[in-house]
Amino acid sequence: MKDLAFYDGYSSEIDNMTIPFCDRAHFFGDGVYEVAMARNYTIYALDEHIERFYASADALKINIAYSKDELSSLICSLVRRLDSDEQSVYWQVTRRYGDEAREHTYSEGAQGKLWVMLRPSKIKDIYNPVKAITLPDTRWHHCNIKSINLIPAVMYAQKAKEQGAYEAILYRKGGRVTECSHSNVHIITSNGVFKTAPADNMILAGIARSHLISACRSLGIEVDESPFTIDEMMNAEEIILSSTSGMCMVCDSIDGKSVGGKNKAIADAIRHWVMTDFIEKTS
Amino acid sequence: MKDLAFYDGYSSEIDNMTIPFCDRAHFFGDGVYEVAMARNYTIYALDEHIERFYASADALKINIAYSKDELSSLICSLVRRLDSDEQSVYWQVTRRYGDEAREHTYSEGAQGKLWVMLRPSKIKDIYNPVKAITLPDTRWHHCNIKSINLIPAVMYAQKAKEQGAYEAILYRKGGRVTECSHSNVHIITSNGVFKTAPADNMILAGIARSHLISACRSLGIEVDESPFTIDEMMNAEEIILSSTSGMCMVCDSIDGKSVGGKNKAIADAIRHWVMTDFIEKTS
Repeated sequence: MKDLAFYDGYSSEIDNMTIPFCDRAHFFGDGVYEVAMARNYTIYALDEHIERFYASADALKINIAYSKDELSSLICSLVRRLDSDEQSVYWQVTRRYGDEAREHTYSEGAQGKLWVMLRPSKIKDIYNPVKAITLPDTRWHHCNIKSINLIPAVMYAQKAKEQGAYEAILYRKGGRVTECSHSNVHIITSNGVFKTAPADNMILAGIARSHLISACRSLGIEVDESPFTIDEMMNAEEIILSSTSGMCMVCDSIDGKSVGGKNKAIADAIRHWVMTDFIEKTS
Repeated sequence: MKDLAFYDGYSSEIDNMTIPFCDRAHFFGDGVYEVAMARNYTIYALDEHIERFYASADALKINIAYSKDELSSLICSLVRRLDSDEQSVYWQVTRRYGDEAREHTYSEGAQGKLWVMLRPSKIKDIYNPVKAITLPDTRWHHCNIKSINLIPAVMYAQKAKEQGAYEAILYRKGGRVTECSHSNVHIITSNGVFKTAPADNMILAGIARSHLISACRSLGIEVDESPFTIDEMMNAEEIILSSTSGMCMVCDSIDGKSVGGKNKAIADAIRHWVMTDFIEKTS
């Protein structure tokens, strides 16, 4: 089939799937999600995505009706049903609704509803530099939970698009850079250090971010997980954005100013490492 | 019929309604909503709710496919289809999805999807005092937009329920009281002033809040729309919570401590005014 939607045990092509009116996604956005990429019908970094999925669900006390192994097996079996072997693999769980569809409170222990969405998709071209803008980060203080309360991400991504940019880089009051609308952001300092925001409640620590850290460790590049400011970023040797589909995007323009481009050897080495890892593990 | 769900031109009982998989409520919670109460098939304060609904949609650039008058007429006509004349009247609009179901960015101008949910419901008993707890307010900085990104409200309401409380009163760093999980909060000071947080981006200024202000003005009670702290609240003469279904709830316990109860004459007068207004306007 060309694409696939799964909801609570039922599956079909996306256009033919519908969702009960009372699902708590509808009134509260009460769920958490993951997105991974598949190639050769193999999901890249599936275990890491599964671990994070359960951590997000735990943080909101949403119960998943499958063990980690069962969920992995289910998603892998669905992936094999698509015509295309290269896919975006999206899944989420929404909290089970009670007798009263729009009651804020809930019954602990009830099993959530599992959703899966599979579509043909390829990873992004990481060899062309991208442009970004900066915006104040006005989100909640639980950005470590990968929830579907994503209006801020929509707002920021739209502002980036309106200005012809690939991403919006966010900063908190005081100038600390957090992350982007749907990517993490990292810099190479003048000392050749890979600096990335700490994995606290102000960012969603990406799986791609952890792969960049692994790349640096393999390559002998020092890693510093501590906050950096807008000023540090604007003056950095390189600025790198990472996400599941855009694993290592070099950024050469922020708010219309030329940035980075001063340590292409490091950027190229990291990029080569993550791309090689992706190709090897999905071969 | 016993209840009613409406989506994008179709209506049925709630249990029989389903929603297309690609609706942006599902992946982003990308919508805004309103809830009003009806009695004698008459929606209380409908015009005020309609105004606020369009303001929320404008703030997120979500387009509504109806004029304000058309939307009011449509909702009123749906309300008359229920067996019960006393109803909770809920509606929302979600941003129209494009060709790509889970693309953060969107096309401006596309008309959103209208949802309505009607259920038999009565306003809450406002003559029994309620208990509350306090919690840090860790939400985003756009609380003036009545969006369906409501995980924080779910988290706070659940914590209140777990502690046997009616509401969770929220405060920002520094001690400023903002609002509750799904109510506004107000105090009567020792000078007999009705003090309520200003209608800035830190609260959703309730329609019930504006009615309390009208009540005070009619009754000659001074109104002060400026921030107050947890300490001021704990020592206030009275603490009042307000929402669409609980229009004037007197709070007599916060975090297990007895509070308020020092100016019952004012609390009673305000309560009488809002209840009379509701009864008269829905008769």
